[in-house]
Amino acid sequence: MQQLFNSILLKHGFTAEKAMQCAEIFTNNSIDGVYTHGVNRFPRFIEYIQKGFINIHAEPSLKHQLGGVQQWDGNLGPGVLNAMHATNSAMELARQNGIGCAALSNTNHWMRGGTYGWQAAKAGFVFIGWTNTTKLMPTWGAVDSKLGNNPLVMAIPYNNEAIVLDMAMSQYSFGALELAAMKNEQLPVYGGYDTNGQLTSDPGAIRASRRPLPIGYWKGAGLSLLLDILAAVLAGGLSVHEISKKETEIALSQVFIAIDINRLGNAAGIAKIVENIITDYHQSIPEDKSRITYPGERVLQTRKKNLTNGIPVLKQVWDQVQEL
Amino acid sequence: MQQLFNSILLKHGFTAEKAMQCAEIFTNNSIDGVYTHGVNRFPRFIEYIQKGFINIHAEPSLKHQLGGVQQWDGNLGPGVLNAMHATNSAMELARQNGIGCAALSNTNHWMRGGTYGWQAAKAGFVFIGWTNTTKLMPTWGAVDSKLGNNPLVMAIPYNNEAIVLDMAMSQYSFGALELAAMKNEQLPVYGGYDTNGQLTSDPGAIRASRRPLPIGYWKGAGLSLLLDILAAVLAGGLSVHEISKKETEIALSQVFIAIDINRLGNAAGIAKIVENIITDYHQSIPEDKSRITYPGERVLQTRKKNLTNGIPVLKQVWDQVQEL
Repeated sequence: MQQLFNSILLKHGFTAEKAMQCAEIFTNNSIDGVYTHGVNRFPRFIEYIQKGFINIHAEPSLKHQLGGVQQWDGNLGPGVLNAMHATNSAMELARQNGIGCAALSNTNHWMRGGTYGWQAAKAGFVFIGWTNTTKLMPTWGAVDSKLGNNPLVMAIPYNNEAIVLDMAMSQYSFGALELAAMKNEQLPVYGGYDTNGQLTSDPGAIRASRRPLPIGYWKGAGLSLLLDILAAVLAGGLSVHEISKKETEIALSQVFIAIDINRLGNAAGIAKIVENIITDYHQSIPEDKSRITYPGERVLQTRKKNLTNGIPVLKQVWDQVQEL
Repeated sequence: MQQLFNSILLKHGFTAEKAMQCAEIFTNNSIDGVYTHGVNRFPRFIEYIQKGFINIHAEPSLKHQLGGVQQWDGNLGPGVLNAMHATNSAMELARQNGIGCAALSNTNHWMRGGTYGWQAAKAGFVFIGWTNTTKLMPTWGAVDSKLGNNPLVMAIPYNNEAIVLDMAMSQYSFGALELAAMKNEQLPVYGGYDTNGQLTSDPGAIRASRRPLPIGYWKGAGLSLLLDILAAVLAGGLSVHEISKKETEIALSQVFIAIDINRLGNAAGIAKIVENIITDYHQSIPEDKSRITYPGERVLQTRKKNLTNGIPVLKQVWDQVQEL
């Protein structure tokens, strides 16, 4: 998969280094089971390059620095490369200042936010990051979309791997609603409103009303708004309402915060704190016989399985990729 | 109210300065309508002092500094004073480094998290902070409590005031469940499970099962876990499972991050970004005729009303306070 992605990217004009980096991220997202932002999304990434939404030669440029905070212009380059760069910048700032923040304006979709959480945590850092998006859900009490999905990522090293939370602000993504509707399945919990303004678990009804629910109703709505405001202000970039006026979802604002916990104290002591929390957490009494997992734990299982058995890919997706 | 609180605190041995600061915070929380962490909570604050859970003479001490990150020991002093101190420290670090993080171990209940969001934002800073708590809800798929409510606060200056999000990780607090049960009201949305493992809006059933819902089900559960891990690691303090072994909710871990946005760019430009987002947000089409508000907006209305008409206090609460 990585070789094919790499050759496609080279064919579309990427430099060898950038082709390799992009191919690796799209492949790793697929290995980790995040197909929606891995192999399934790759054709649209190429399409956006062809349409000129993504400038493959753009490099992020430093707009402003204030101590441990840097503001970067992503210059509409590939979102995954810009985000990887910003994560590295935040870590470098954290090496110098204990804590670092790299904010990125004018960038493109970072695909899977967890990528940067894993990147920073595997290098020994605590990571907090988020992006804004185009508008896709109403705020609490409203019927028209004003809020983005604005995924929030938090990560910390654990057990030579990482604990990585990667959560969007809607209870279900439109992708998840589409998938459930295709399978004719009801959602496990309410996912939004139907066109009569009633809460529903019917994915088709939510797609029809365009009223998916924020997590925790009024709470997730508030969090989505604050993440957008902070991203736009810290990056000096566009906010959800401005991005939503674009032809497609481009020119996003993102924030990457890293903290150098290796030098905060005794490394063994820090590892022990995390270990003790997870040990206690795993002792939760499950409602059924399923194992209680922490954020990122099932990714490890999927990664292992896909590295052993190969990455499952839908035939129509693979056919499409091979034609790129 | 502030005078009475002040005299009670002096009687219980507070210095003049600390009595004034504590009295002001408890009063302001009441003025802002957060009675649960204002006047209603004041008697328990005094009780905790009498029982020795809170050491009124303790000062926070700096354990470790790494550039823009400081680790403080709260020495079991009054939570509101420790949190105010840590907020000031984070802002001072941000003045020096652009971004600053003060992490606080061994502290007590900060009452209302929003207090510190308002404090930092009114001084011109972006603020991100959170605390851990004792355990009070199960993680997703589990029946026994392992997770804290771990309130998360985000704030930014706006229009000479602030936008302040202050949200706990459960959909409803036990206080809110108790109030709804007393009034014989159903909750507006599911708040947890009944003892048969069914989702319910009946506050009494949730109190009986001790299974309140995290916001966004699996998502809020994950966020609660990460906030606890990060608080314990950054502060070098206790985590939810350790706090839960204490006689009561003491020795918490908290994180205070400030970013000096005044020097990040042109102040007018930053204010304009926020203004434009809020203007667009306010144009949401409401489901009924109610006004769509941003986090903190209704606080301003309550503040104005209570400053004009006085703070409404339940008679039994005021009687109790007067006897302290």
